Amino acid sequence: MLEELKARVCKQNVLLKESGLVVLTWGNVSAIDRNSGLVVIKPSGVSYDTMKPEDMVVVDLDGNVVEGSLKPSSDLPTHLYLYRNFTEIGGVVHTHSTYATAWAQSGKAIPPLGTTHADAFFGGVPCARKLTEAEVKGEYELNTGKVIGETFEGKDPYAIPAVLVQSHGPFTWGKTCEKAVENAITLEEVAKTAYLTLSIDGKTPDVDEYLLNKHYYRKHGKNASYGQNKN
Amino acid sequence: MLEELKARVCKQNVLLKESGLVVLTWGNVSAIDRNSGLVVIKPSGVSYDTMKPEDMVVVDLDGNVVEGSLKPSSDLPTHLYLYRNFTEIGGVVHTHSTYATAWAQSGKAIPPLGTTHADAFFGGVPCARKLTEAEVKGEYELNTGKVIGETFEGKDPYAIPAVLVQSHGPFTWGKTCEKAVENAITLEEVAKTAYLTLSIDGKTPDVDEYLLNKHYYRKHGKNASYGQNKN
Amino acid sequence: MLEELKARVCKQNVLLKESGLVVLTWGNVSAIDRNSGLVVIKPSGVSYDTMKPEDMVVVDLDGNVVEGSLKPSSDLPTHLYLYRNFTEIGGVVHTHSTYATAWAQSGKAIPPLGTTHADAFFGGVPCARKLTEAEVKGEYELNTGKVIGETFEGKDPYAIPAVLVQSHGPFTWGKTCEKAVENAITLEEVAKTAYLTLSIDGKTPDVDEYLLNKHYYRKHGKNASYGQNKN
Amino acid sequence: MLEELKARVCKQNVLLKESGLVVLTWGNVSAIDRNSGLVVIKPSGVSYDTMKPEDMVVVDLDGNVVEGSLKPSSDLPTHLYLYRNFTEIGGVVHTHSTYATAWAQSGKAIPPLGTTHADAFFGGVPCARKLTEAEVKGEYELNTGKVIGETFEGKDPYAIPAVLVQSHGPFTWGKTCEKAVENAITLEEVAKTAYLTLSIDGKTPDVDEYLLNKHYYRKHGKNASYGQNKN
Repeated sequence: MLEELKARVCKQNVLLKESGLVVLTWGNVSAIDRNSGLVVIKPSGVSYDTMKPEDMVVVDLDGNVVEGSLKPSSDLPTHLYLYRNFTEIGGVVHTHSTYATAWAQSGKAIPPLGTTHADAFFGGVPCARKLTEAEVKGEYELNTGKVIGETFEGKDPYAIPAVLVQSHGPFTWGKTCEKAVENAITLEEVAKTAYLTLSIDGKTPDVDEYLLNKHYYRKHGKNASYGQNKN
Repeated sequence: MLEELKARVCKQNVLLKESGLVVLTWGNVSAIDRNSGLVVIKPSGVSYDTMKPEDMVVVDLDGNVVEGSLKPSSDLPTHLYLYRNFTEIGGVVHTHSTYATAWAQSGKAIPPLGTTHADAFFGGVPCARKLTEAEVKGEYELNTGKVIGETFEGKDPYAIPAVLVQSHGPFTWGKTCEKAVENAITLEEVAKTAYLTLSIDGKTPDVDEYLLNKHYYRKHGKNASYGQNKN
Repeated sequence: MLEELKARVCKQNVLLKESGLVVLTWGNVSAIDRNSGLVVIKPSGVSYDTMKPEDMVVVDLDGNVVEGSLKPSSDLPTHLYLYRNFTEIGGVVHTHSTYATAWAQSGKAIPPLGTTHADAFFGGVPCARKLTEAEVKGEYELNTGKVIGETFEGKDPYAIPAVLVQSHGPFTWGKTCEKAVENAITLEEVAKTAYLTLSIDGKTPDVDEYLLNKHYYRKHGKNASYGQNKN
Repeated sequence: MLEELKARVCKQNVLLKESGLVVLTWGNVSAIDRNSGLVVIKPSGVSYDTMKPEDMVVVDLDGNVVEGSLKPSSDLPTHLYLYRNFTEIGGVVHTHSTYATAWAQSGKAIPPLGTTHADAFFGGVPCARKLTEAEVKGEYELNTGKVIGETFEGKDPYAIPAVLVQSHGPFTWGKTCEKAVENAITLEEVAKTAYLTLSIDGKTPDVDEYLLNKHYYRKHGKNASYGQNKN
């Protein structure tokens, strides 16, 4: 079932490695089929080099395995929380990409310092609060999702499709798994450039709001002018 | 029309990616045929992996599409401004290459700290002033070109074929699109080395003027001695 | 003899280079066959590009060459000390990987700043004390092993399978040579991310102990849930 | 003439690029045939991608072209000065490799902070004084050689086969051109690691002298124990 989606999810998992975002098996991509409510996700701890579409695991939104002989990624409950609560997204990505993880470990949001950031993220990429001891000892991966949800209270997850889980690493999402991976690539580049910018001048202010708006809306929304017309 | 130039522009766009200057679709190369006054430019938001010469868009100096079924790069008006005002250049490049973008985000010029810089740029690479809200809300890409022009008032754009657009990223140019790409590669390397040099010693002075002159004129002008005689 | 183990050790030595952990010939992998007490190790100063399984050297735990026409790695006595004293390990790796070596040169332990660290190392990666002049002038490579042993007095070498030899570089180990190489890859990534994190905020505290526990035990011990069931 | 040496010099020039030490055409390797006193060097400004052994230029120690239709590297007089004055060397390399160039631009010697350094360089890699205006305006490339010679007054150029030319970049040398390239690779790695080490702790002291001695003499001189016996 969902053979086409499994092929796409497999390809995007491999792309994580090819893009230099992950080493070893440290990352996972999933996608949801909103018609059936089924999610396709990478199996846990499997090498990207040998991964095949049929290795992908199909689960429902409660995490029950519907198809597949391998165990799903241990981060599955976080993915599922995001699908249940950010109901317009179609793909989720988790990596430990180097610079985004450094920001997550520092506990700081990535400030929007230029148009590269504004092209993808409509404001700083927030860093979630630390999980409490009870949250970690309880349903840890589910609670990770809940803390992400809490971080976006009053924020638009579709305009800022990325978060830093504190002491851990980034999650990104998008309308499709391809877009979620693109956001993961952009996030890492933005994280690196922000790091370098603040090393050059630690007092660099955020990009002007009117420039942030300009770039964000060149690429998003009804009046987007970037790229080719796809509809 | 301009089939040879389209092939060259296509090849140089791909070279941007191969040289590590761009990720995703964040960069564009154009070239002008000075005889006809027509400009060949990368289409907007198209992947470098599948780009073909026939995808290139041909426009006139006012931005009217003369040939091509795809939309031109959204940065086209900036390219055109440069061709209209820097009348000796034949190619323009825009990237978000990591270190040059970090300098652009910091709002600082890249100081000339050594001979690698002097071989290509006859002085510091300037950072343009920020655009005003009116400039951003108006004809933004055209105004980006105008601010570059303003930055070079009293400066020689042929001796310093690069600029940092503040909060954004670098533009470079040259007699040909090949030379403009070479300048983009050099700029990124110079931006990285300057960053590292000032991290080692934040008080490193600019290269001595006589050494700057020596290296610049080894490679440029009538008495250049570097490379093979091509005429 | 031990042909299969020689093939594995050869492959893992080549993987060190492919993973970007070594340049030139600066790294070595060994493995032990606990049944026979024989150790297979890379020959000294041989290029990874031309290395073949039959080039591997077989020695006993006292360092006597049992098979092989080439000289073993000069770091052999350090490897043997680790096999004799950490009796549950099956593989040892030594590299001069860039970031781990920088930490070793600085004489500082790598602090556990996030879950990437906790997934592999149950606490900070310690930096051994400097060797004395007598230790360096005497049996240097053996004494390097002894100082590593001293560093782990009161620590569990199976829970923290890595050490920084001060002024020198990292050693890692594991149940197999494959696992030891995986730990070397993880260590370098952790060393880089810790460097960046502290550059962003020099006062970043260690990861909360309950989160360290959670991640370590997701991947290790009886109740590990990560990856596929292999038994 | 010297066909074998031309093939070796060509191969080592290409290796500079493959090792990531140079971009564009910014580096050159030469070798000397001490029997005939003839030097083989890379032509000026030629791409590494298309370079062939027959493109190499043969010159005598006064710089007269003996064979070859292309112009020799503009750095030739520096190479020749080194061959005339460091009479035991067989190869010379010049690059603008990123980290070594950053140290050269900062005007600081690379301190010996660990065994990676000590394995190749018997002490800090010195930074030459700046050339005077007269030296730059005169026989610049020859004077660059002379300033290197001056830097090694009282130092052993065979024990420290590398120098930083201030505001410019590194030169390395060795008994053969292969060894000179190996030293260039090592120098860049050492330059990067020293940079990172001092970023972690700016007060990191030099490696202990007895450890420097130990590592240097493991790899050099009559009692070297590293690698395979080649004689």
